[in-house]
Amino acid sequence: MSTPGEAPRKVGVLGARGKVGAEVCRAVEAADDTELVAAVDAGDDVAELVRSGAEVVVDFTHPDVVMDNLRFCIEHGIHAVVGTTGFDRSRLDQLEAWLADAPGVGVLIAPNFSIGAILMMRFAAQAAPFFESVEVVELHHPDKADAPSGTARRTAELIAAARRDAGSAPMPDATSTGLEGARGADVEGVRVHGLRIRGLVAHQEVVLGAAGETLTIRHDSLDRVSFTPGVLVGVRSIGDHPGLTVGLDAFLDIG
Amino acid sequence: MSTPGEAPRKVGVLGARGKVGAEVCRAVEAADDTELVAAVDAGDDVAELVRSGAEVVVDFTHPDVVMDNLRFCIEHGIHAVVGTTGFDRSRLDQLEAWLADAPGVGVLIAPNFSIGAILMMRFAAQAAPFFESVEVVELHHPDKADAPSGTARRTAELIAAARRDAGSAPMPDATSTGLEGARGADVEGVRVHGLRIRGLVAHQEVVLGAAGETLTIRHDSLDRVSFTPGVLVGVRSIGDHPGLTVGLDAFLDIG
Amino acid sequence: MSTPGEAPRKVGVLGARGKVGAEVCRAVEAADDTELVAAVDAGDDVAELVRSGAEVVVDFTHPDVVMDNLRFCIEHGIHAVVGTTGFDRSRLDQLEAWLADAPGVGVLIAPNFSIGAILMMRFAAQAAPFFESVEVVELHHPDKADAPSGTARRTAELIAAARRDAGSAPMPDATSTGLEGARGADVEGVRVHGLRIRGLVAHQEVVLGAAGETLTIRHDSLDRVSFTPGVLVGVRSIGDHPGLTVGLDAFLDIG
Amino acid sequence: MSTPGEAPRKVGVLGARGKVGAEVCRAVEAADDTELVAAVDAGDDVAELVRSGAEVVVDFTHPDVVMDNLRFCIEHGIHAVVGTTGFDRSRLDQLEAWLADAPGVGVLIAPNFSIGAILMMRFAAQAAPFFESVEVVELHHPDKADAPSGTARRTAELIAAARRDAGSAPMPDATSTGLEGARGADVEGVRVHGLRIRGLVAHQEVVLGAAGETLTIRHDSLDRVSFTPGVLVGVRSIGDHPGLTVGLDAFLDIG
Repeated sequence: MSTPGEAPRKVGVLGARGKVGAEVCRAVEAADDTELVAAVDAGDDVAELVRSGAEVVVDFTHPDVVMDNLRFCIEHGIHAVVGTTGFDRSRLDQLEAWLADAPGVGVLIAPNFSIGAILMMRFAAQAAPFFESVEVVELHHPDKADAPSGTARRTAELIAAARRDAGSAPMPDATSTGLEGARGADVEGVRVHGLRIRGLVAHQEVVLGAAGETLTIRHDSLDRVSFTPGVLVGVRSIGDHPGLTVGLDAFLDIG
Repeated sequence: MSTPGEAPRKVGVLGARGKVGAEVCRAVEAADDTELVAAVDAGDDVAELVRSGAEVVVDFTHPDVVMDNLRFCIEHGIHAVVGTTGFDRSRLDQLEAWLADAPGVGVLIAPNFSIGAILMMRFAAQAAPFFESVEVVELHHPDKADAPSGTARRTAELIAAARRDAGSAPMPDATSTGLEGARGADVEGVRVHGLRIRGLVAHQEVVLGAAGETLTIRHDSLDRVSFTPGVLVGVRSIGDHPGLTVGLDAFLDIG
Repeated sequence: MSTPGEAPRKVGVLGARGKVGAEVCRAVEAADDTELVAAVDAGDDVAELVRSGAEVVVDFTHPDVVMDNLRFCIEHGIHAVVGTTGFDRSRLDQLEAWLADAPGVGVLIAPNFSIGAILMMRFAAQAAPFFESVEVVELHHPDKADAPSGTARRTAELIAAARRDAGSAPMPDATSTGLEGARGADVEGVRVHGLRIRGLVAHQEVVLGAAGETLTIRHDSLDRVSFTPGVLVGVRSIGDHPGLTVGLDAFLDIG
Repeated sequence: MSTPGEAPRKVGVLGARGKVGAEVCRAVEAADDTELVAAVDAGDDVAELVRSGAEVVVDFTHPDVVMDNLRFCIEHGIHAVVGTTGFDRSRLDQLEAWLADAPGVGVLIAPNFSIGAILMMRFAAQAAPFFESVEVVELHHPDKADAPSGTARRTAELIAAARRDAGSAPMPDATSTGLEGARGADVEGVRVHGLRIRGLVAHQEVVLGAAGETLTIRHDSLDRVSFTPGVLVGVRSIGDHPGLTVGLDAFLDIG
């Protein structure tokens, strides 16, 4: 998505020797329109970000250090794309205060960088009011402790909210006899089914149906590197979004 | 599946003006290797089956009349393929007694003529012992009263039996927290999930998984005519199976 | 999607005794928020639309009569939702001219009322720039004359356009040896594959992939009644969209 | 699949420090009914297999050394399960000659240990004569050089052979206009379609259809460890199959 002739964006990575950070480094190096100029981890000097001319920093570090990292970036006019967890309201308020003094700088805080998962949730919610029936099926490896998955619950909540807003009728269901659990879990009126199958990673399907037709939106996450394309979208977009943004969704607005 | 040059099988249909019987008539006429020679319904003379030289009769009539029909066919040396319901042990015993006196004649009693459904169940049971995890998902229109479907329960029972016979370990499942119903219904240790979606007809998926791979067997029934190919298999095979056969499965042995 | 207490919309159907029109009548009668007040066909008096107080007319008639129908509706202040074909630029210009004199009246001309198909195309195009790879698979009954289907070609063109606009790189494909046709047809750089399978109706799947994840959007059309929910969306929305609208898409804006 | 109280099978691994061999070691250790007693690689003493009391050896080594390994095993009465490649007719003849002198010993030579792939091919071929239409879709990562995949070609050949044996009619296809390649590659009358999608590993779907119904058999290979369950089936079964066996299929006979 680079314009030919444009110089690649200079990117620094914080947490570069962690599992996730290392994947980010590889992805930044592999893309045509980004260039890895600094790979910094605990013990390294963050000033390297400035010396190397990094325009954007990607932070996958730790809740204990991420705020210091971000203050440094903001003060030095470097945009930040952040996958580190632990952001509550007070931390977001603090970031907004810092950014108020650095008008051109953008910070993205994203709990989920999987573009596929984000689009699945968005499309499911957008489509839900146009169909009589919507159910969610999630499929994961059998070592998972919770059922349904957090993503499936969130998807069902978004579907339920979209239908409430549209004034949709309750879904039809004539089930009168059967076995307990056969119709799945009920999340705000949306049925959610969880399969646990050896060999699978993380998968989800939303099935929507109306008279004579169905629409199915399925996301398959097959490898942990699935977050890297989302990180690159963040890196490419953050410069055009000064201030604080929460959620990668905002950068996928494709109207 | 006819041999070139062979004369088509002469077929009579009992219950020919019923919804199902009419579809059977159409299918017999459409196939290259079968010929419709008699279409008989209530009020018609069954002797027409003999006059027309029917070699095989297909019966989709009513429990009240089917036994009389079959006695007539057996006495006249006509094979029968029967989709009419209501056969209990005493009726099957009666048929076997009649067939003992008509050594060349075959009668097939089949509760389900959908080849796709039969193969799905068979393949699922055959594969089940080779995978750590197996679950069943059935999807139907929302006017269905029972959940899970009878086919899904039967499939789960066949899977459970195959795993017991093979000494398979219980399936792995680390679920410790979650919502009620999220993991579906438990049919002899096999999880079964039922979706009710407007626009669907009758669909079922069996998902099997082992380290690094999954096998999925899916059956979609999209139209009521899905039973006709199975009826034709019965018509083509019954002559080679004298005596009583219960279940179309026996004719799908393809070892 | 009706507000409780609101009176149902009064709907007239033109072409009410045709196959499609009859389905529309049934759907209008079945919905809670619409009421069938006039069912008019060739030979009937269109003035019935006015006498019955129809607020919206649905027209599934014939290119020869549809313009007269629409002039009548517009002159009498009745909104129109039109599935009749044959609208070229000059006909659309004529409609706009008539509508200029009837400022509150809306007319929707839609070549495709399947909400599932419309959303599949839209979501596929929206998602396409965020994935390295996108391909289209369409599956139809074997009596279809063209391959790929018109919908599949249109989907591929929309995907190609979205990727051009975003400056996406060409898709990766290391294929160097193989059989002719194995990689499908090339529609503006998007691969399209067509299956012809007995038992199927009309189905399409768009598969999008990036590092470690895939997103699949599938539409299954199982019965001809699949257009009725889209017609109802048109009926419910047309009053809020005075003037001429082409394509149901415009009423699915759910941003 | 062990009988409670039975001692676990003692297993030696040849090529134990290779990528594949190391996975085999892990799988043998993890299973309840097998015990890893010897892990041997180049430079180690194969006599360790005898000293450790190995009942079965798994060989993932190299064509240059595998024949010596097998002679050693056969001479010492140890069964062998072999994934090493390079077995031509003359090598198989040699093995049979050696085995003639060791009547209780079994050797399995298998080109493919993925149970899912083997069952997919078998089920597809078994089902093919019962459906009017059968097509194959394979989906792989875009770095693959050949299209269609070898497995897809082999599957199509098996389907074509099964239909020839059954005297099946050619598949219906009314396609008269369209784009080149839209209907895929033709492998002995069976259409094969290949998708290349970033994020995928190796996947295949066989779609079979008859009037009103379809049957879909899908295999997803998501990780290279997918061969280990097949190796364990070989280890558990080889003792009951003295002599030479080619192909894991023979041990999956579940009639």
